[in-house]
Amino acid sequence: MFKEYQQLRIPGPTPIAPEVQRAMERTILGHRSGEFSKIFAETIKKAKRIFQTEQDVLIVASSGTGALEMAVANVVEPGDKVLVVVTGVFGGRFAKIAKAYHAEVLTADFEFGTAADPNQIREILKQHPDIKAVFATHCETSTGVVNPIQELAHIVKETNAVFVVDSVSALVGMDLKFDEWGVDIAVTASHKALGLPPGLALIAVSQKAWRVIDENQGTRFYFDLRSYRDNAAKDTTPFTGPVSLVFGLSKSLDLIEEEGLEQGFKRHFLLRNMVRAAVTALGLELFVKNDRDASCTVTAIKGNDQLDPEKLRKVLREDYKIVAAGGQQHLKGQIFRIGHMGYTHPMDILTTISGLELALKQVGYPVELGAGVKAAQEVWANEKNLG
Amino acid sequence: MFKEYQQLRIPGPTPIAPEVQRAMERTILGHRSGEFSKIFAETIKKAKRIFQTEQDVLIVASSGTGALEMAVANVVEPGDKVLVVVTGVFGGRFAKIAKAYHAEVLTADFEFGTAADPNQIREILKQHPDIKAVFATHCETSTGVVNPIQELAHIVKETNAVFVVDSVSALVGMDLKFDEWGVDIAVTASHKALGLPPGLALIAVSQKAWRVIDENQGTRFYFDLRSYRDNAAKDTTPFTGPVSLVFGLSKSLDLIEEEGLEQGFKRHFLLRNMVRAAVTALGLELFVKNDRDASCTVTAIKGNDQLDPEKLRKVLREDYKIVAAGGQQHLKGQIFRIGHMGYTHPMDILTTISGLELALKQVGYPVELGAGVKAAQEVWANEKNLG
Repeated sequence: MFKEYQQLRIPGPTPIAPEVQRAMERTILGHRSGEFSKIFAETIKKAKRIFQTEQDVLIVASSGTGALEMAVANVVEPGDKVLVVVTGVFGGRFAKIAKAYHAEVLTADFEFGTAADPNQIREILKQHPDIKAVFATHCETSTGVVNPIQELAHIVKETNAVFVVDSVSALVGMDLKFDEWGVDIAVTASHKALGLPPGLALIAVSQKAWRVIDENQGTRFYFDLRSYRDNAAKDTTPFTGPVSLVFGLSKSLDLIEEEGLEQGFKRHFLLRNMVRAAVTALGLELFVKNDRDASCTVTAIKGNDQLDPEKLRKVLREDYKIVAAGGQQHLKGQIFRIGHMGYTHPMDILTTISGLELALKQVGYPVELGAGVKAAQEVWANEKNLG
Repeated sequence: MFKEYQQLRIPGPTPIAPEVQRAMERTILGHRSGEFSKIFAETIKKAKRIFQTEQDVLIVASSGTGALEMAVANVVEPGDKVLVVVTGVFGGRFAKIAKAYHAEVLTADFEFGTAADPNQIREILKQHPDIKAVFATHCETSTGVVNPIQELAHIVKETNAVFVVDSVSALVGMDLKFDEWGVDIAVTASHKALGLPPGLALIAVSQKAWRVIDENQGTRFYFDLRSYRDNAAKDTTPFTGPVSLVFGLSKSLDLIEEEGLEQGFKRHFLLRNMVRAAVTALGLELFVKNDRDASCTVTAIKGNDQLDPEKLRKVLREDYKIVAAGGQQHLKGQIFRIGHMGYTHPMDILTTISGLELALKQVGYPVELGAGVKAAQEVWANEKNLG
């Protein structure tokens, strides 16, 4: 009966709004048809608003990692010196991709669970004025850390380097003022806070970045941003575009517009605060201790001697129909993660917590049933001024 | 963003499983096509299993009330004496329909909120041996009462009367052994525990009933069961059948089979017990006091001087996305009702209760947040032997 019944509480893919699901079911169109071109052009116009930019936003058929590579491939030539801010697995992935493109990679490493320190980045940039690009992760999905992108952008802006931001699991869930902050490249993917299936990536590009990209002689073809820009000018894609995902994106952007970007940020902030309050009330330890460093889109929770996160996740999934994520790399078996982005209502968090409580009890962890739900309810009630 | 986001917790229509939704999206077929006839015949075969019968089960395009009328129209001729067991609005509806067919209608009325007393029915049948049919409601949707159908069937079986059961909001959620108990006509509708949109009704007919139906000279055309039986023998319907709903019914019956009827009854029993425990823990009063009389598919909860059910329902719906039902007729403004049938998981009840708690707080009712959730969790945990 309940084979497909589940709450998808991993940090992407995320639940899909019925309006978006139906939009994607629209009869497929040819990717070169005038009808699709019209939708494509309108969708790009709407997408600029979520990046808060007047500059170029391009659509590519790829996962989030493809979009990260797109950023690297267009900026980096072999031998270029770049700086990668590493606060977790996805910062590490930026470094890996840059190395695959034969860059000379400097990394600024921060302990997993804490955000990057802008002062350290400023220092490194001073010591290495020849750094061509700085890569940073907005929300580090592997730990639930949010990095201070505005401050980092401010620092990099004063140099010749371009500032590249992986906002895959952050955009729309947390603020990113592309133009105002002076970000040069920002990427996101469809299956995170945009609430679409995976397969579509968005990339915003500044004028400062285009100057580097246009001069870049490095190898690239599918991910060559110049061909996406040149084709976007003709309302089309260089290669076959992800037609149905564009239908869905168009609708998803409408829903986001309808809620309002600011209201959406507030909602994600509330979801985070509800999860953090509940988890704390249940006597569990948050992986990101400092509220300031805690992402509004994903929360990591520590296991301990009495709590095996992998056992807990299995019970959560099988008995309580809640799909949480585990830890990655050295955090595997150490933490579990709850995604709360995109088409996620505060009610969903109450459901998640009520299931988490029962799963904790089931794996033998001492828990007071209802205590986590109550804490989350109180956060919401306070926000609503219910007293 | 969340325009369509809701938990439909009224006693029908009910949530629809994604598998069923997709099944209904299958390309439409002609209702006289061989392809549809094959699906239709297989679906009827599967439908017999939910009535626990080897006798006839027929499909008609109508709402539940249409199916009630079908039962009346085929059994009652003008002037016939019938007995209607009335425990609420839907028992009353049976009486109304019988009157519309010019029957001489006796009613056995029981206080709303309590089940029918079989002894009284036995007495009336003794006093009126010329009663041609007894009409009873299995689950009285307006109050959440379940009537003792097995005992009533046993009593009516000893007479010449046919026993007609409205199992619209009960079948699949609670046991009905059509053959073993000796029910003569039982009807249900698609939008209750079967988890389909409204528009399809099912009617089971015994040999004893057919003898009455075949001799009945009363007026009827669309609802003439003889034409449904004769056409079912040729794997079709007399008039245009509800093709897409049959696709959905076929899948819904597969899901029910997969869970197992008995397991489904246990699940509905659990859902009821969770709701009743939670409501009591929150200091609210159940409309059906006796557990024995309480339906496993819908629960009615009383308002009071401090609690206006209509205000509560508005807040529940608007702020917490939970759609509950109000009271009907003289119970309007006195109670609210929570449906828990069909594609409803225990997790859904935890969600409902967590939202109910916040809504109670919001309308100013004194409530301890988390207390209802905890009570419902404990019922479930006990059932799972979590200690």
